[in-house]
Amino acid sequence: MILEVAVLTVQPGKSSEFESQFRKAVRLVASTRGYISHELQKCVEVKDKYLLLVQWETIKAHSVGFRTSPVYEEWKALLMPFYEIPPVEEHYIRIRPIDDTSPLP
Amino acid sequence: MILEVAVLTVQPGKSSEFESQFRKAVRLVASTRGYISHELQKCVEVKDKYLLLVQWETIKAHSVGFRTSPVYEEWKALLMPFYEIPPVEEHYIRIRPIDDTSPLP
Repeated sequence: MILEVAVLTVQPGKSSEFESQFRKAVRLVASTRGYISHELQKCVEVKDKYLLLVQWETIKAHSVGFRTSPVYEEWKALLMPFYEIPPVEEHYIRIRPIDDTSPLP
Repeated sequence: MILEVAVLTVQPGKSSEFESQFRKAVRLVASTRGYISHELQKCVEVKDKYLLLVQWETIKAHSVGFRTSPVYEEWKALLMPFYEIPPVEEHYIRIRPIDDTSPLP
């Protein structure tokens, strides 16, 4: 499982409109093969900053499956007009915790 | 519920040792009142970069409850030696999706 993390910076004053448009646009991602789940998170400290967290089965499901699909162009057309700067995207792999229940030293 | 997002940049060559130390240190966070869950995520594209995602009941549980507790000093002492630059921390609130199952236009 892979976590896509996208930092989204929305133009001042357009947050409400962006959130509304995002709810429509995200259905394009959610209908992509390999999509598991997503969260849109809004920053408390930095106005108009969001994190989009998407769980994918593999990196390829996102970087090839989604990004080379026709719906990707539609996704960009719906959301790019709201961004102050181009989104920054990275992928992450969860570090598995070792189940350690021994008391702290 | 609040998501704490910390960007952690570990010194080159120290990732394995950091991950091992983190597993011990995170028990200090997990024992704090208001802690819900956490994930340590490692970046695919940027070597030695991690995201720590912590779910808290409130911002105060983290910014006051944890940061002013004696265990915070212990947490810093365990992990700060591994960082290349000081961690950057922000808080996020999840934007609730509206349950919209109508077909795409």
